[in-house]
Amino acid sequence: MTGGDDEGGLSSSAQEVADARGLTDLDIQAALKTFVPSGGRDEYVMFASGGHSGSVFAIGIPSMRILKSIAVFTPESWQGYGIGGPTEAVLDQGNYNGQDITWGDTHHPALSETAGDYDGEFLFINDKAAGRVAVIDLKDFETKQIVKNPFSNIDHGGTFVTPDTEWVIEGPQYAAPLGGEYASLDDYNEVYRGYIMFWKFDREAGRIDESKSFGMELPPYWQDLCDVGKLESAGWLFCGSLNSERATGGIEDGNPPFESGVSQNDMDYLHIVNWEKATEMGRNASMTESYNGMPYISIDTAVAEDLLFMAPEPKSPHGSDVTPDGKYVIVSGKLDPHITGYSFENMMSAIDSGAGSPDPYGIRVLPFDDVVVAQIEVGLGPLHTQFGGDGIAYTSLFLDNAVAKWSFGDTWELLETIPTQYNVGHIAAAEGDTVSPDGNYLVSLNKWATDRFQNVGPLLPQNLQLLDISMEHPQVIYDMAMGVGEPHYAQIIKADKLDPWQVYPEIGWDPHTQAVDPDAAMPGQERVERNGNNVEIWMTAIRSHFTPENVEIREGDNVTWHITNIERAYDATHGFALPGHNVTLSLEPGEAATFEFVAGNSGVFNFYCTEFCSALHLEMMGHLLVQP
Amino acid sequence: MTGGDDEGGLSSSAQEVADARGLTDLDIQAALKTFVPSGGRDEYVMFASGGHSGSVFAIGIPSMRILKSIAVFTPESWQGYGIGGPTEAVLDQGNYNGQDITWGDTHHPALSETAGDYDGEFLFINDKAAGRVAVIDLKDFETKQIVKNPFSNIDHGGTFVTPDTEWVIEGPQYAAPLGGEYASLDDYNEVYRGYIMFWKFDREAGRIDESKSFGMELPPYWQDLCDVGKLESAGWLFCGSLNSERATGGIEDGNPPFESGVSQNDMDYLHIVNWEKATEMGRNASMTESYNGMPYISIDTAVAEDLLFMAPEPKSPHGSDVTPDGKYVIVSGKLDPHITGYSFENMMSAIDSGAGSPDPYGIRVLPFDDVVVAQIEVGLGPLHTQFGGDGIAYTSLFLDNAVAKWSFGDTWELLETIPTQYNVGHIAAAEGDTVSPDGNYLVSLNKWATDRFQNVGPLLPQNLQLLDISMEHPQVIYDMAMGVGEPHYAQIIKADKLDPWQVYPEIGWDPHTQAVDPDAAMPGQERVERNGNNVEIWMTAIRSHFTPENVEIREGDNVTWHITNIERAYDATHGFALPGHNVTLSLEPGEAATFEFVAGNSGVFNFYCTEFCSALHLEMMGHLLVQP
Repeated sequence: MTGGDDEGGLSSSAQEVADARGLTDLDIQAALKTFVPSGGRDEYVMFASGGHSGSVFAIGIPSMRILKSIAVFTPESWQGYGIGGPTEAVLDQGNYNGQDITWGDTHHPALSETAGDYDGEFLFINDKAAGRVAVIDLKDFETKQIVKNPFSNIDHGGTFVTPDTEWVIEGPQYAAPLGGEYASLDDYNEVYRGYIMFWKFDREAGRIDESKSFGMELPPYWQDLCDVGKLESAGWLFCGSLNSERATGGIEDGNPPFESGVSQNDMDYLHIVNWEKATEMGRNASMTESYNGMPYISIDTAVAEDLLFMAPEPKSPHGSDVTPDGKYVIVSGKLDPHITGYSFENMMSAIDSGAGSPDPYGIRVLPFDDVVVAQIEVGLGPLHTQFGGDGIAYTSLFLDNAVAKWSFGDTWELLETIPTQYNVGHIAAAEGDTVSPDGNYLVSLNKWATDRFQNVGPLLPQNLQLLDISMEHPQVIYDMAMGVGEPHYAQIIKADKLDPWQVYPEIGWDPHTQAVDPDAAMPGQERVERNGNNVEIWMTAIRSHFTPENVEIREGDNVTWHITNIERAYDATHGFALPGHNVTLSLEPGEAATFEFVAGNSGVFNFYCTEFCSALHLEMMGHLLVQP
Repeated sequence: MTGGDDEGGLSSSAQEVADARGLTDLDIQAALKTFVPSGGRDEYVMFASGGHSGSVFAIGIPSMRILKSIAVFTPESWQGYGIGGPTEAVLDQGNYNGQDITWGDTHHPALSETAGDYDGEFLFINDKAAGRVAVIDLKDFETKQIVKNPFSNIDHGGTFVTPDTEWVIEGPQYAAPLGGEYASLDDYNEVYRGYIMFWKFDREAGRIDESKSFGMELPPYWQDLCDVGKLESAGWLFCGSLNSERATGGIEDGNPPFESGVSQNDMDYLHIVNWEKATEMGRNASMTESYNGMPYISIDTAVAEDLLFMAPEPKSPHGSDVTPDGKYVIVSGKLDPHITGYSFENMMSAIDSGAGSPDPYGIRVLPFDDVVVAQIEVGLGPLHTQFGGDGIAYTSLFLDNAVAKWSFGDTWELLETIPTQYNVGHIAAAEGDTVSPDGNYLVSLNKWATDRFQNVGPLLPQNLQLLDISMEHPQVIYDMAMGVGEPHYAQIIKADKLDPWQVYPEIGWDPHTQAVDPDAAMPGQERVERNGNNVEIWMTAIRSHFTPENVEIREGDNVTWHITNIERAYDATHGFALPGHNVTLSLEPGEAATFEFVAGNSGVFNFYCTEFCSALHLEMMGHLLVQP
């Protein structure tokens, strides 16, 4: 590095810095486009899934700084999530198969929408590895709820929301018998199924209402990404699929492995679902089957009620993406170099005309030529499409290591391809899943980094590349090393649409109920009460002490411990660690928490504040004394 | 943002970008100093503790990008650490008090050193919340070992290494009875103690050798940060402390809270330890006491053998830092506006002369004036000192929100203070703890961010600010939002000193033994073997299939599952998720893993690759079929 001359002529010294560091003119522009000065603000916040980290990340754009991780399916001790404190109850909602499930594979974050536009209130995310969906409240960026898909132990194409977030949709992927129960692979065609879940979202409560939710049975094709219709196509839903072959693998028995077995057919099936009509009958007992108390619409009913149609789609597609105007569905067959554009209007005409013939499950497959309006050769390995403004689309090209820019609507043509490094999976554009994408930033979520960063051992970071798509010829302007997870998909919202709390509204706040906890420890009422073997502690935290500081109990006591951060200052978080008891809490200003344990061992346990809250932070401690 | 003109005159269009984004001339320089072009390399890697995230982070400098998180004390599912796989055994080493401890509070990372210089081979990190130390191998950036301090359930001033990494030193903090056993606070002075651990490091084995390690009893002052002598002071160790008052708190009983109780005395005690001499007797049964099989040197023995001395230090100090030349120890009394410089030569003279008088535990306290050579008023809340080259030092000023730059050696004087935002805790300089700091970069690990970033809810990121200290007047050149943990301390190493593997050396590699696992699944030998109720699976993973793909077993079977990633390509990681069984693995090229479970429920479980490895990644799956 060079020191630079902080007194001299600024243009010349800036150039000196650039020269000394070997920056090209394009590097200089990229640097100036992405640098956010101290105290400045990013224009957008990207919510990226963390993949098998089980988390979600809020990332500023254009700086590509990780503003916050949000723990969802995996315990996270910095946030005090799921380790000894009350948030364990959130995580426990997702347990199944008789055991704790302490991680997740987050895939597709979906911001809540109003009239097809991100509204910044909630975020939903699925867990592919267990078939679960979580609700995050963007008032405090914390996970409030996890629901477990009762039909399936796996999902993929989720979450997606309807234009006013009435429903959160969790798409399936690998087929399995209902509820994951045992059936031989010999019975695959007859017994294995996919189940799409329609989770009813109660915005007022900030929760999914399981009692109003339902599923729909789908054939054992591997349903992949879905997208929800908007504007012209509002009320409908579109999901790609990739195993119309219904291959069951078995390389060990001389069968083709899945990678080739599911890649035989030239066409797979785009699923076309009338979700709005489905919701009218999803909780109607006479129209549904039920499993473990959750209703689902069978394929037969879906066919009979005109809820479910299909269209051929080439070839093992990944993404199916609705254009901002709602007029087209774009499918990228990852083994086909084209994107394929379907007209919603044509779909409706074909449905009305009765055209097409049934698949093996009786689902009417609309004629390809009736519904497809365009195909463009974009390159190898097209996966996923996002939108700029004004009829411009971008498709990731996994095999070509590039993003294709192309136009749709009036003219369907490839405009150019922009190299990215390397193996781009999903892409995300600013406001890209809304009815009005902004057309300025696009992030290429590259799966391989190889030579892009320092070598940090055999497990590499991912490379999230920021592209300036406001340029006539878009370019990569930043390489973000993503070394804390493997984001699968992301959504990018204008930062000024977010309006989180700075501190909790009142002292004694329970973030789970989003209300004051009547049992919260309150200032001036700190105490320890004993009732037989039951000990209840009311403790407050403020810079720089806990009250009480010393708590003496007896081995075998049943302990209920309330603790409240009574600060009102922004950023005045206190942590609480209780050694020997696997308890860690992060208490934001106003927050109250309660945890319980049985005092299993006598001893002295020095509890302390884990968040460096003040110059006297180290003095913020106390003793739990457990008498033998 | 502006589009810029990617064809036009570059200087002018760069200026247009800067103008449109409101960048000042200093912003432009900062942008150009920190931007690393796509495919470029950072000059340094900072290893930052994650605080109560329980992790360590590798961060590139000057770009401040998180290259990798390293899971240590907290399970982490992206890395497949501690959730169902073989690394659970690493985490389990740290359990105590009869339960799993599934998080940690990492504080002070220490890079291994050779001749007082970082050598890039290993990283050590402590867990304050449980009194534990972990060993990370920088060949693969993975945690290999956790050792539990047998004397204490808490630590703080650790880890620090001796100049050739013969010993890893874990300093204590809050006092408690030996082993954390119960004793009343009334017996604090007599029974409560600190215990410093000397962990013997076997570089060849890459492990701490507990059988050669030992502790030393210290008075119940709260020992804080330590630093190890080097060059002139090699063989000695220096630890600050902050509760010479031996306050025991009790705000609930009308006592002064700790924050004031431990802040009464004008002077606390700098601990001066002859670690080299201590190691000669630490495993000598006739010189030591023992607790749970681990020997420790008592205070009485330490005094009798001239291992332990003290010197007064003002006032509730945090850092004690040895200058690169080893000649001075710098103490920052956080309630005193000065730094205080102690001469090692003077300490030795005072020790030899017999000067000083004993503390309440018989430890000789050297006269302040005999050992102190300088005091400089640097500002309010001085915490921690780091070094540039050529007799320049930097001290964090928590209360002043600044970093003080000052000189030592020939002239001791404050040179200037550089504002930082806000509440700086530790600071870390490039190669700053070595015998030859580089003097170009310094990171201010600010604990509060308040107005620096987007509002992301009541829990804010930290603000890690990069300073260019090669400038005559150092300036902040980057604000990094640290939203995935609360780094406490960091060390910064030249990137070219790191030489990690790109892939594991051979197929079938066990990262725990760093050798080929004789039981590893190998290509061509994939199989399932049944022996009564015991089923053993040998599976391989390669783009884009597992072999075997389908595994059929019976409920109640005891399953041992070996899986090997047989790739040799850089970055060709495969993940392995087994739904319903809470198993997630990250298998880097060559890596082998074994996990075991009892098949508790019948059903169909779709296992799959969690790392987006190829265009046919979704096809990389299989079925575990568990017959009822």
